[in-house]
Amino acid sequence: MQGRFVTVEGTEGVGKSTNIAVIKEWLNERSIPFVATREPGGTPLAESLRELLLANRDESVDATAELLMVFAARAQHLNTLIKPHLDAGTWVLSDRFTDATYAYQGCGRGLDLALISQLEVLVQKTLRPDITVYLDVDVKVGLARAAARGELDRFEKEDVDFFERVRKGYLARVSQDPERYLVVNAGQELPAVKRDLLAALDCAFPQT
Amino acid sequence: MQGRFVTVEGTEGVGKSTNIAVIKEWLNERSIPFVATREPGGTPLAESLRELLLANRDESVDATAELLMVFAARAQHLNTLIKPHLDAGTWVLSDRFTDATYAYQGCGRGLDLALISQLEVLVQKTLRPDITVYLDVDVKVGLARAAARGELDRFEKEDVDFFERVRKGYLARVSQDPERYLVVNAGQELPAVKRDLLAALDCAFPQT
Repeated sequence: MQGRFVTVEGTEGVGKSTNIAVIKEWLNERSIPFVATREPGGTPLAESLRELLLANRDESVDATAELLMVFAARAQHLNTLIKPHLDAGTWVLSDRFTDATYAYQGCGRGLDLALISQLEVLVQKTLRPDITVYLDVDVKVGLARAAARGELDRFEKEDVDFFERVRKGYLARVSQDPERYLVVNAGQELPAVKRDLLAALDCAFPQT
Repeated sequence: MQGRFVTVEGTEGVGKSTNIAVIKEWLNERSIPFVATREPGGTPLAESLRELLLANRDESVDATAELLMVFAARAQHLNTLIKPHLDAGTWVLSDRFTDATYAYQGCGRGLDLALISQLEVLVQKTLRPDITVYLDVDVKVGLARAAARGELDRFEKEDVDFFERVRKGYLARVSQDPERYLVVNAGQELPAVKRDLLAALDCAFPQT
């Protein structure tokens, strides 16, 4: 049996790491074999592309170049790590995937969503996540948390308007395919976020 | 007036560097302002992508990932270096461009040429080189020259059949649009190659 493909999405400072730890605990309690990975990244080559994407640099980065680097990393990640694991029955838990491309490069940078969709089909064919956990939080609250973590990367340095567009992009994705998303209000206190996330997982995967 | 865009193509060991020096001399004698660049590369980010593309690595590189990295580097190169120079009236002389993608990733790796064409339109819109110098040589002769230069990169390590397909790919490109290409027999002695190249340039740019 194919493994399930679970992705976790959200804007900066939304608490992805904390909630990914909750999902790992949930998987371990059920003895489900899984691999945890992230995008951009997940293989040595894709991690090198991640470094190039996040690095602060003097050179202004062309938006199309950025988009193609994201999908190059994804092609490598998908074909050398994600698909082989799913085919072997292992679940894959990824910190971000293509929803982030629609939200950041599409709505954030203003690139044509139809173009992103073309590249998605080119790289992924029909493969999509089974379930995407979308952690939603007020953009200003999230940015304040991210800033408290220290040095900001090239994306984290964008302004509030950029992240407002990214959040709208995520919410638009959710509204277009509500069955795939588990939306969790990540603006609550941590125990309430964890409770909601666990309840949503139990509901999404009742047989496991 | 727009600058002209001149590219130089050929398989390994064909003598690109030597012949690029001849073209630079030709441009300097005519006091034509130009910038010499290369692909993949030409900007700091695109050069970083070149390093990732050429590096020998344990990880097998997905062909689609390689293709998207090539076009990511090209988008950055084109939008931040090539176009601004052409618009300013400066000629651009590039060691390789999209013909190499058709030849190496298309015919060499067997990727769909229609897909390469889609990415070409996406990244370049209608921009194409004005003139492409194609240096043609017997594959085995070229590979022997390349091997004599020392350590081989990830592409140079491919086998003879790969480069035979690459050469066929270049020759197919030439036959589809013969007006754009100056084909030079690079298997001759150097003075003869130089003489043919200079004659072809004089013929292609009679007014300069």
